[in-house]
Amino acid sequence: MIRVDLNCDLGESFGAYTIGNDQEVIPLITSANVACGYHAGDALVMEKTVALCKEYGVSIGAHPGYPDLMGFGRRNLAANAKEVYAYSVYQIGALRAFLTGAGMKLAHVKPHGAMYNMAAKDAALADAICRAIRESTPEGEEVPRFLCLAGSEMIRAAERAGIPYTSEVFADRAYEDDGTLVARSKPGAVISDEKVAIQRSVRMVKEGRVLSVNGKDISIRADSICVHGDNAHALEFVRQIRAALEAEGVAVGAPSAQ
Amino acid sequence: MIRVDLNCDLGESFGAYTIGNDQEVIPLITSANVACGYHAGDALVMEKTVALCKEYGVSIGAHPGYPDLMGFGRRNLAANAKEVYAYSVYQIGALRAFLTGAGMKLAHVKPHGAMYNMAAKDAALADAICRAIRESTPEGEEVPRFLCLAGSEMIRAAERAGIPYTSEVFADRAYEDDGTLVARSKPGAVISDEKVAIQRSVRMVKEGRVLSVNGKDISIRADSICVHGDNAHALEFVRQIRAALEAEGVAVGAPSAQ
Amino acid sequence: MIRVDLNCDLGESFGAYTIGNDQEVIPLITSANVACGYHAGDALVMEKTVALCKEYGVSIGAHPGYPDLMGFGRRNLAANAKEVYAYSVYQIGALRAFLTGAGMKLAHVKPHGAMYNMAAKDAALADAICRAIRESTPEGEEVPRFLCLAGSEMIRAAERAGIPYTSEVFADRAYEDDGTLVARSKPGAVISDEKVAIQRSVRMVKEGRVLSVNGKDISIRADSICVHGDNAHALEFVRQIRAALEAEGVAVGAPSAQ
Amino acid sequence: MIRVDLNCDLGESFGAYTIGNDQEVIPLITSANVACGYHAGDALVMEKTVALCKEYGVSIGAHPGYPDLMGFGRRNLAANAKEVYAYSVYQIGALRAFLTGAGMKLAHVKPHGAMYNMAAKDAALADAICRAIRESTPEGEEVPRFLCLAGSEMIRAAERAGIPYTSEVFADRAYEDDGTLVARSKPGAVISDEKVAIQRSVRMVKEGRVLSVNGKDISIRADSICVHGDNAHALEFVRQIRAALEAEGVAVGAPSAQ
Repeated sequence: MIRVDLNCDLGESFGAYTIGNDQEVIPLITSANVACGYHAGDALVMEKTVALCKEYGVSIGAHPGYPDLMGFGRRNLAANAKEVYAYSVYQIGALRAFLTGAGMKLAHVKPHGAMYNMAAKDAALADAICRAIRESTPEGEEVPRFLCLAGSEMIRAAERAGIPYTSEVFADRAYEDDGTLVARSKPGAVISDEKVAIQRSVRMVKEGRVLSVNGKDISIRADSICVHGDNAHALEFVRQIRAALEAEGVAVGAPSAQ
Repeated sequence: MIRVDLNCDLGESFGAYTIGNDQEVIPLITSANVACGYHAGDALVMEKTVALCKEYGVSIGAHPGYPDLMGFGRRNLAANAKEVYAYSVYQIGALRAFLTGAGMKLAHVKPHGAMYNMAAKDAALADAICRAIRESTPEGEEVPRFLCLAGSEMIRAAERAGIPYTSEVFADRAYEDDGTLVARSKPGAVISDEKVAIQRSVRMVKEGRVLSVNGKDISIRADSICVHGDNAHALEFVRQIRAALEAEGVAVGAPSAQ
Repeated sequence: MIRVDLNCDLGESFGAYTIGNDQEVIPLITSANVACGYHAGDALVMEKTVALCKEYGVSIGAHPGYPDLMGFGRRNLAANAKEVYAYSVYQIGALRAFLTGAGMKLAHVKPHGAMYNMAAKDAALADAICRAIRESTPEGEEVPRFLCLAGSEMIRAAERAGIPYTSEVFADRAYEDDGTLVARSKPGAVISDEKVAIQRSVRMVKEGRVLSVNGKDISIRADSICVHGDNAHALEFVRQIRAALEAEGVAVGAPSAQ
Repeated sequence: MIRVDLNCDLGESFGAYTIGNDQEVIPLITSANVACGYHAGDALVMEKTVALCKEYGVSIGAHPGYPDLMGFGRRNLAANAKEVYAYSVYQIGALRAFLTGAGMKLAHVKPHGAMYNMAAKDAALADAICRAIRESTPEGEEVPRFLCLAGSEMIRAAERAGIPYTSEVFADRAYEDDGTLVARSKPGAVISDEKVAIQRSVRMVKEGRVLSVNGKDISIRADSICVHGDNAHALEFVRQIRAALEAEGVAVGAPSAQ
């Protein structure tokens, strides 16, 4: 049976600050990318988010980011591979400790924001994250999956490192002929018609194909779809895409639970 | 054979800032309390410090502190037990990930500065740290020892939690009749004569006894002595205390290596 | 004509995190306490908040706090007077620069959360803040008012320092016979009946008197009432208290605009 | 009489962390760039550094940087012009408050590390800093000088903004034919022979000319020379370059003191 994961950033609140609707989106998704305290999240939020994911049977991944709380980890930072390695080990380890406390295992790692965007294009950074994932895994435990942008350097790094990975697609983004994302600055980068976005998603999952921004039918691997829970509209979209996938006979579930 | 541990705070550098003489003190000690990024230390420093400890066969502990880099974790902060628990899990987990990468195990946990001082007197905080130590330990792995101030609430919390602990003494500090430290604000709190400090240390280790500030001969458990490596003088003191202990037939080594 | 100020904490958002309903509460108040980046707020938020206050003719004060973003500055921190002085100068200066850019003057300074609570009881900390207020004032400019808890050490410090001050009361809090706040841990500390809270406020402003928790009629100076804008209910309360004051012939306005 | 300024980064310590030899370098320089708490420095350090500069009659400038303490502000960060403006206003204001307390005026502003390097090439960032300098200046006070890399976008931004500026050169760096710095990654970027570095500096100051990396004799404006005080060797170099300049009849002094 064809299967797809729905992943969403979670646990991004910090101290007195609340962000996201974790409680509402969590029943709709299958994998949570939990912020680890560098770009968002704090220790109390991490503990709470792990408990919430456990309650709903959602698979948990670490969501390491740059140490830029002021910019929510969205701004490119010229951290080198050695720094990205150490930042990833640190954040993965911090989250894993809360999972251990909850009797759960770390299922995946997805870098956040600027770290994700930079590692998608920079092989050295992607390699550093793979190394962090593998080396921070306790003996006897399965190596968590690397949640990677489809067609990116992250995929190639995971293959080089021999670690399991998940190829992620975006429902509302256009793709170039080579399977990379059309930059947001270019026209046509975002698919604003939600019906089209959902149809494209279903086809990416079931057929492994999508129409590029230039109208070429290209191959793409869609193991997971990135969704958001920031507002009522986003939540409604998650409900629709999930319903459409299930109506098409696609199983919605985390890869690690396969 | 009587045995004692020499523990020292390590890995307190941060970014471009260097503190301590880790390279020099490390050959003299048996346990390192490694800062975990809240009050001092950063991910790169943690990686480097773990490698250094491994090279010299020094046992490694996590040294969680309050999130107060500006105050080096030395200022009392009214964090509640729930917060201290989560801060401890976070920091222990972050350090453990670097140990996993180095093929090592976490040997102990010693809270830093104000967190240490407050937990020594506050049972709820001490319990929170014990719970963090136990719950963050991966299944099948030995629970790390809690490095506690002799005669403090931390000792009682470890006993309540049923986790292994190490009772720590200070060579240069005076004790009250009940075995607690004389507050630094009181006269006679610090033993300035180093020969006396060393003789007292040897007796605490070998006989389990020390003369209180009031001249009473009291019982004290000395599993580990806290030493410092901040300057040439401190380093020389570590050399002397270690030599004195060994001359008296005391084995100097980490408890976890026993 | 009797006059009272309505002050409210503002500009507490940080990076991607939004807190408070600044846009809604601002038309209802006369003085804003603007967070300065230590416990809340960031440079972009400060710029925006100053512009918003200017638009609505609201008087602006600096709201310095402890460097504890994770705890929103609400946790007591053992910072000494020297530290509180420097933290206050730093934060006052940072906010004043945005006011200069907007062609406005700093009207007052109100410490936030734990710094407020600690300075209310600790003369040395209150003196440190007064010194910071006076010494950071540019030559030829009026010294901003110190917004102080009625009957507290802050009032006495302002008098010692010879700087102008505003005596602040809380509509929903009970007072001891000596005019200090009943601790929140004690029964009866909070006035939950909003009508009573409003009647008490009007009387504090018009008569300078209030019934203590023990039923004694005591004297209290009410130059400003602290209000909140966190939620719809709080906003409604501000509307009611303002309407009640105006119906009783009290002028609502900032002291600096007098 | 020909005149040149010697500027040096100062006040970069933070909390328990000490960096630099402020006490030793300060008698040798004429302008101090004081860190403002984002990339280095804290409120206590700023107060102390201002007092030290006052004691030695050294002119004080703000040294705003990116909010990256972990990277000491040396890593490029994709902050936009609006952010750089607000970060600069904030940091300039914070430092100015300490100067006000010491009865001194802010003489200049020099961005730090990555902010300096990025503004040297990006007109929008350079404009943002100029706007921050001008708008944060209290009415009736002289606008501080913008300390700019010779031949950079910062110079052009200062000219556009109509604010005073100082053109800075580096004794130990090679220049391209167009007067920009040879990138550190290129061969010949650094002048390792100190005698040559000093001779070049003297010529830049006295004749306004320097030999480019390609052997072309180019024009360069040298109002200030950047020096360092990190170690004994750096201090000795400052002594030599100062002596050489004075022996050649050049007055060494801050531009604002002219």
